[in-house]
Amino acid sequence: MPSRIFGIVTVSAFALLATQAVADSLPSWNGGPAKQAIVEFVAQVSDPDSPGFVPAAERIAVFDNDGTLWAEQPLYFQLIFALDRIKALAPEHPEWRNTQPFKAALNDDLDMVLAGGHHALLELVMATHAGMTVSEFRAVADDWLRTAKHPTTGKLYTDMVYQPMLELLAYLRANDFRTYITSGGGIELLRVFAEDVYGIPPHQVIGSSIKTQYEYRNGDPVLVRLPELNFIDDKDGKPIAINQHIGRRPIAAFGNSDGDLQMLQWTCAGDGARLCAYVHHTDDEREWAYDSESHIGRLDEGLDQAQSDGWTVIDMQDDWNIIFSYEEN
Amino acid sequence: MPSRIFGIVTVSAFALLATQAVADSLPSWNGGPAKQAIVEFVAQVSDPDSPGFVPAAERIAVFDNDGTLWAEQPLYFQLIFALDRIKALAPEHPEWRNTQPFKAALNDDLDMVLAGGHHALLELVMATHAGMTVSEFRAVADDWLRTAKHPTTGKLYTDMVYQPMLELLAYLRANDFRTYITSGGGIELLRVFAEDVYGIPPHQVIGSSIKTQYEYRNGDPVLVRLPELNFIDDKDGKPIAINQHIGRRPIAAFGNSDGDLQMLQWTCAGDGARLCAYVHHTDDEREWAYDSESHIGRLDEGLDQAQSDGWTVIDMQDDWNIIFSYEEN
Repeated sequence: MPSRIFGIVTVSAFALLATQAVADSLPSWNGGPAKQAIVEFVAQVSDPDSPGFVPAAERIAVFDNDGTLWAEQPLYFQLIFALDRIKALAPEHPEWRNTQPFKAALNDDLDMVLAGGHHALLELVMATHAGMTVSEFRAVADDWLRTAKHPTTGKLYTDMVYQPMLELLAYLRANDFRTYITSGGGIELLRVFAEDVYGIPPHQVIGSSIKTQYEYRNGDPVLVRLPELNFIDDKDGKPIAINQHIGRRPIAAFGNSDGDLQMLQWTCAGDGARLCAYVHHTDDEREWAYDSESHIGRLDEGLDQAQSDGWTVIDMQDDWNIIFSYEEN
Repeated sequence: MPSRIFGIVTVSAFALLATQAVADSLPSWNGGPAKQAIVEFVAQVSDPDSPGFVPAAERIAVFDNDGTLWAEQPLYFQLIFALDRIKALAPEHPEWRNTQPFKAALNDDLDMVLAGGHHALLELVMATHAGMTVSEFRAVADDWLRTAKHPTTGKLYTDMVYQPMLELLAYLRANDFRTYITSGGGIELLRVFAEDVYGIPPHQVIGSSIKTQYEYRNGDPVLVRLPELNFIDDKDGKPIAINQHIGRRPIAAFGNSDGDLQMLQWTCAGDGARLCAYVHHTDDEREWAYDSESHIGRLDEGLDQAQSDGWTVIDMQDDWNIIFSYEEN
């Protein structure tokens, strides 16, 4: 018994020191159990003398995007992009005025759009995301991200990223982690802003995709985006895509919904030190509060497993002293 | 005119200096036009004062594998692996003795196997590559690579990599390139040896793949390999997969067959300094000699475009003073 007690005391003292040493790296995090779990984990895997040491090449951390790195209310931002594009393209498509779900989209009748279910959303996405080259799509997405404003905050969508998560990404990279996005959102839209906003380069972005076709147009090769699903990077798709793109199991995973559950299961089933964490949307004042009953970012089964498996739950209200960087202004 | 002449003289002198400076990096290359094109290109993109300078993050080089990094005769090595596995698994499949293409494979009747066309090969591949977890497959492939011998040289397959290409990979990485494999071969087999043999980590390996399925077996998540094609990374598939995995256009591409043509077109259509090169199998003594008439690694249309577009052609007989490192012994 004395040796076990001694062990616990040593670990706690070590964690305390580690927390203090990196206090400046995570200033938007309050000093609760979530921050402590992160700091302990990073200290453990980076210290060559620690039993939990992991070589830098294997320090891979994966992050969901919607609801984990940036907000996802009142609607996934990529769906707002699709709705905005429907309006921009409407003059070229007079038939949309009398055809659902386009008519509902043009009339800002979101309930009617959502009543059409997945099929309606897919139609809107394909009408706005396909039928152009990859370069052309990136230019359109870039223009939207630079100008479109969130319906309730009036901020650019790229301003609605979580300041504590930006600090976490930088902190992990400073400790030789490679940080990846593994999003249910579209891979090409993500790549337009992920490097500038998150410091995550295009080859470390994993997402859903539509098929593309190679065409050699008079000596000028292009990749054309087709109105056909290629891969849905959600639920079971996340560990599948992680294996396909990375070929190694991550040692840390961050999500916020049941769509991230399989990614967290896959990550934390590996040997050695692991960190699986859920961002829990608990702050109705500064952000939104939702979990098991939400139609977007539902967190139900995942929260149960987080409790039973001892994963970290990041309580936005308690753990983050700033949510969006614009709060500082 | 004088200024133009001066310009040419300057570039040539610069290239000569560059060639001498890195002479030790590419010792297996003779000093012909192929080596000179490589050295000039690398010098140009790495020198911040050069008009062709490319930031390190964009220095991406892609390499085909079969026939470009390692040999591919008398048969793609992965097909030899499949045939070896058929024999190893035969005791569990007595029905194979009377069913084609398995019967032909068990009788070493390669002509009969090939007479079955793509369908027969696919059957053999699925019977040997699917129906197990990703981890289990890696263990089987690793064991084969450590023990199986090439039918004519008697060497391990991983000894049949081209020494000049190993030097080229290292030379590019020493100049801050990221090197990728983009192979028609299977992504998981490649990942088993690519890091040890080529210095290319799993996340920089792109290849063909079969579908996988996520299963949560009593709290133990696994990825199961299914007997269903996911993606063929050949011809048009190569630029498509490069965009999917990397999200940026490479600035250098190396192949050896018409299956690499679209990858080279895509790479060299980008702005700024580019290097597209074909390895031409011209050495019947030390390796094999084949191009437009070969059923494996056919190089026909690609050779025409290399000439018309001024791409580099690496003549194995003339340009390489060593092909396999075991020649040195």
